[in-house]
Amino acid sequence: MRIGMLTGGGDCPGLNAVIRAVVHRADAAGDEVIGFRDGWRGPLKGASRPLNVADVAGILARGGTILGSSRTNPYAQGEGGADAVRATMAAQGVDALVAIGGEDTLGAAARLAADGVRVVGVPKTIDNDLAATDYTFGFDTAVHIATEAIDRLRTTAESHRRALVCEVMGRHAGWIALHAGMAGGANAIIIPERPFTVGRVCDWVNSCFRNEYAPVIVVSEGAVPDGGDELLAAGGTDAFGHRRLGGVGTWLADEIERETGAESRAVVLGHIQRGGTPTAYDRVLATRFGVQAMAALHDGESGVMVALRGTDIVRVSLDEATAELKTVPTTRLDEAEVFFG
Amino acid sequence: MRIGMLTGGGDCPGLNAVIRAVVHRADAAGDEVIGFRDGWRGPLKGASRPLNVADVAGILARGGTILGSSRTNPYAQGEGGADAVRATMAAQGVDALVAIGGEDTLGAAARLAADGVRVVGVPKTIDNDLAATDYTFGFDTAVHIATEAIDRLRTTAESHRRALVCEVMGRHAGWIALHAGMAGGANAIIIPERPFTVGRVCDWVNSCFRNEYAPVIVVSEGAVPDGGDELLAAGGTDAFGHRRLGGVGTWLADEIERETGAESRAVVLGHIQRGGTPTAYDRVLATRFGVQAMAALHDGESGVMVALRGTDIVRVSLDEATAELKTVPTTRLDEAEVFFG
Amino acid sequence: MRIGMLTGGGDCPGLNAVIRAVVHRADAAGDEVIGFRDGWRGPLKGASRPLNVADVAGILARGGTILGSSRTNPYAQGEGGADAVRATMAAQGVDALVAIGGEDTLGAAARLAADGVRVVGVPKTIDNDLAATDYTFGFDTAVHIATEAIDRLRTTAESHRRALVCEVMGRHAGWIALHAGMAGGANAIIIPERPFTVGRVCDWVNSCFRNEYAPVIVVSEGAVPDGGDELLAAGGTDAFGHRRLGGVGTWLADEIERETGAESRAVVLGHIQRGGTPTAYDRVLATRFGVQAMAALHDGESGVMVALRGTDIVRVSLDEATAELKTVPTTRLDEAEVFFG
Amino acid sequence: MRIGMLTGGGDCPGLNAVIRAVVHRADAAGDEVIGFRDGWRGPLKGASRPLNVADVAGILARGGTILGSSRTNPYAQGEGGADAVRATMAAQGVDALVAIGGEDTLGAAARLAADGVRVVGVPKTIDNDLAATDYTFGFDTAVHIATEAIDRLRTTAESHRRALVCEVMGRHAGWIALHAGMAGGANAIIIPERPFTVGRVCDWVNSCFRNEYAPVIVVSEGAVPDGGDELLAAGGTDAFGHRRLGGVGTWLADEIERETGAESRAVVLGHIQRGGTPTAYDRVLATRFGVQAMAALHDGESGVMVALRGTDIVRVSLDEATAELKTVPTTRLDEAEVFFG
Repeated sequence: MRIGMLTGGGDCPGLNAVIRAVVHRADAAGDEVIGFRDGWRGPLKGASRPLNVADVAGILARGGTILGSSRTNPYAQGEGGADAVRATMAAQGVDALVAIGGEDTLGAAARLAADGVRVVGVPKTIDNDLAATDYTFGFDTAVHIATEAIDRLRTTAESHRRALVCEVMGRHAGWIALHAGMAGGANAIIIPERPFTVGRVCDWVNSCFRNEYAPVIVVSEGAVPDGGDELLAAGGTDAFGHRRLGGVGTWLADEIERETGAESRAVVLGHIQRGGTPTAYDRVLATRFGVQAMAALHDGESGVMVALRGTDIVRVSLDEATAELKTVPTTRLDEAEVFFG
Repeated sequence: MRIGMLTGGGDCPGLNAVIRAVVHRADAAGDEVIGFRDGWRGPLKGASRPLNVADVAGILARGGTILGSSRTNPYAQGEGGADAVRATMAAQGVDALVAIGGEDTLGAAARLAADGVRVVGVPKTIDNDLAATDYTFGFDTAVHIATEAIDRLRTTAESHRRALVCEVMGRHAGWIALHAGMAGGANAIIIPERPFTVGRVCDWVNSCFRNEYAPVIVVSEGAVPDGGDELLAAGGTDAFGHRRLGGVGTWLADEIERETGAESRAVVLGHIQRGGTPTAYDRVLATRFGVQAMAALHDGESGVMVALRGTDIVRVSLDEATAELKTVPTTRLDEAEVFFG
Repeated sequence: MRIGMLTGGGDCPGLNAVIRAVVHRADAAGDEVIGFRDGWRGPLKGASRPLNVADVAGILARGGTILGSSRTNPYAQGEGGADAVRATMAAQGVDALVAIGGEDTLGAAARLAADGVRVVGVPKTIDNDLAATDYTFGFDTAVHIATEAIDRLRTTAESHRRALVCEVMGRHAGWIALHAGMAGGANAIIIPERPFTVGRVCDWVNSCFRNEYAPVIVVSEGAVPDGGDELLAAGGTDAFGHRRLGGVGTWLADEIERETGAESRAVVLGHIQRGGTPTAYDRVLATRFGVQAMAALHDGESGVMVALRGTDIVRVSLDEATAELKTVPTTRLDEAEVFFG
Repeated sequence: MRIGMLTGGGDCPGLNAVIRAVVHRADAAGDEVIGFRDGWRGPLKGASRPLNVADVAGILARGGTILGSSRTNPYAQGEGGADAVRATMAAQGVDALVAIGGEDTLGAAARLAADGVRVVGVPKTIDNDLAATDYTFGFDTAVHIATEAIDRLRTTAESHRRALVCEVMGRHAGWIALHAGMAGGANAIIIPERPFTVGRVCDWVNSCFRNEYAPVIVVSEGAVPDGGDELLAAGGTDAFGHRRLGGVGTWLADEIERETGAESRAVVLGHIQRGGTPTAYDRVLATRFGVQAMAALHDGESGVMVALRGTDIVRVSLDEATAELKTVPTTRLDEAEVFFG
């Protein structure tokens, strides 16, 4: 069998570990693997390279993806859809695809499967907001990096009796903020799932100072205050990431200082959360995903993706997997609130 | 309610995170907490200290346990058993216990519960070999440390074309070796669950050198060769850890060099795997365990322990939890073998 | 002898290591130590606490300062100057001071020494811009953190063929950018000592893309373009760190994208560079500074500070030490430019 | 000009950074570089590969050496000496050599220079025991790794009230033990420069336990007790590193337990100290060494090596550099002893 592999969407620590695992597992079974470049652009335009065991030596611990990535969608206007993908596969003798990516990449994979392309998916999202899998690789690394940052901010907060706001990734789901905030002992965690009021946050801030602590507040980039108009005004939509650099974190530090009079600072972690070497946890999960994606192909599967359930790697339909966003349940946030203030 | 808490068995990153969580959750509910010193010795002899929110400030990220630990078993000859524990609890006005520990500590807790002592358990084992929970805190930290070591050994192996053997913890179960080996891209992983032959290991070693790699072999301290007599001879049972320092890892490096003629070295990670700051993963898990242990007490539970199932914290009977050892299933080792040689 | 110790200015990893060293060295000599709170505010207002060996247990590896800090200057309008300091010292039986801080803190120490107060200084600046010492503690930690971030940004840059701009600390001197940039293999390093042109930066960016690399540019927060008016306009002077969060890094990424058409992103490391546990290098340097500051007092010195020269800790006059800013010499930047583009 | 480069002796983090720097600097000057394989074996047998800028992409942060290493000495019986080296250089059109290594490698370089071969040296020793340079790359990384280990051992020591002995590298000089011990807050540091008595060590151990601490003792692998016969008996000279794994650390833990009755454990860090990614400090130093070695060649130098003096890279004669071992001066150990017990 000849397998074509691609990585789509934002980069994520562990992508190379999946690539390596697919190649090793294929090699063990006597299959060939080629890597398509830049997400779906590869299968559409035909840009690819052979991948053998030697090609993936030493990439397990490397962040990013050796295949490059893109947000190209085969079903977008003028991209040629399933026919273009099939044509490339036929021209390069590719029997099946392994598509590694998030909602968009896997959504396209689901549609291709419905259109008769043989494809198995591997879920990837740093935000951990993909339904049907307990965790995705890259998330643990992002939480690890954010936690390290929170540990550092705490010592500077304590030394200067300042409030420090740490803005982490998470546009629609607060998983990174929740886990990094719990791991870092945050005095408040603010996530998109629960609109916040500056007043409530300032109550926590003031109670920290009363108890001789300096507060560290962790906030998801996608968190919005009740009636987020002010934020919208403050945040803007500058194409150069002003939303990211001048977003909710900076705005909130500003509000806290104005309301409480306590010196406040914001740090926006941004891209450092998604790069670098994956944690051991993510390397293991990504490696298992790669091995089991190949196993699924060997079992004749298509239109499924691998997923983590407890300690097992299972297979779920791509439709189901991409149907809904996995957000933080109220019970998890309540668990964290025990430590607020 | 007044809760007594203790930590038993070997130390483990995350113990302090559990202690902190129990105290915060109790404080939020208006309960008092006292910490018993040195595992079950505390409730037997009465050595304890009050624990309030201020006492646990800043311990979340610290390894070890502020309560100290011991291997004392209340049911051991002359320790006084349930009566002694009850007497101390009565004298100090303690209504219920939170016992944090591994098989032995929780086994005693189960027996005390059967004898009418109100107790909830929190599972702790770096080896991850406790049944009834997907993972235990401390394990991820140990895997992280071992993986870092393997990453380092690889570069020195490559530079000198040596075989490097890394001995990690795991007397009865190979979880640390399996995960750290997968995460570090080990060329062979040897665990107690599957007796090994030097010949097989040397086949992997030779195939690495043929393919211009330098092999890194990860071995559990409890792994034994088919007919482990030679090892026993080599290892001995010296009370000063000679078993650890001169055990299977050193012996195997010796055998590999003799069989293959390739220069071989062994590193025994030993205690550095169980100390230091817990990973973000372990801090979150330990914190959730602590919160949910208190929730169980508030629900009037006894004789149960908290456990991780998928992403949920559930409650399982202490008897069930300590009934059997959780070893590595064959399927997981097969998954890893894809990368051997 | 009874010594009063204080930490002034911005917090810096290693301050606690100095405090611990002073206390241990004093204890060994039979001296007493008290810690003044919040920089010079302590000696002015009298807020202090005794410090013995037990008080400093476990702080060696902790960032920040257990004494708190401030920017209070005893010679500022209404602070009371040398008389107020002498009065507090007399009231608390303090014979001499150990002042740990940067230009401002040591400048005040120099003036107090001239006014007859017995004081020895310990230099502290993350920016490493203090004359008369080869290095200051905190700098290596900041470089370590920034280098880690650059390593992470590189993988994401490569995966998306983006230009990534990393803004690091350094208002007047580019030491952190120079060292972190060299250590991270930056494709351009921009520092205050050498005004830059967007055109030159874009030449490096384009040459990277031509050679199939994705550029990572490291820029000091204090770097200014030739004729920095646009920047001033972009940066603003928002009291809530907008200068920091929306400063040269964001502006430069914006310019690069506009000039080259290549997707560009900025990350501003901000406060995470100054917090957290110090590197081994900084712990050793800070510890030696503390020991040698006490040795200077024992030798009857005043008006001097300890400094690193090669591998030796020497004593230099506080006047000399605070006379001028240590900026990056041209030769060092030329060394780095070998790797640009 | 055409330069031949080689790396000799034990591997060391930063070797690849030197290689990269030499290639970039040569490329900027229009020179060619070839890399000889496996230390002096390359120039003797002719095994080499061209090295251009693309070949060294991404190696800056990688431990080990892409050129491989060996302990081959060109002047050893039957190796052919200067004539063989000259013959290879002539055959491959090599004008000059850059030799990166420790005492042996540089000793051979010095002799080749005397015999008319044009060669510049770059010092390399993890032990930091090479005279004529303040520091060598690799040392800071080794200290960083050892310090991390000591931090971890402390928490486990505290939790179990055990004495923990950490054996680090350093056969003839105690630099790693001294710096890692100071950085880790060791309660005793034992180095080859000062023979120790078990009695003295036990005094420190007992004073720790009296003051409610658990002692962590750092010992160089080359440390010997007054009259080291017992140790010799215990250590042996097993070719498989038994000296390393069963050496002074294990022996000392054994003695401490016997003398004090306190449970004692030993950890031997071994090879993990010399592998993995270099610290930022070492990457900068190694990069500067590489750049300045090429600069020396461009200035027509031969028989010199680059060295760090304060913050400057200077040139010293290879004869001088290899003349004597740099051991820890008494003053430095006295500085550390302030913290013992």
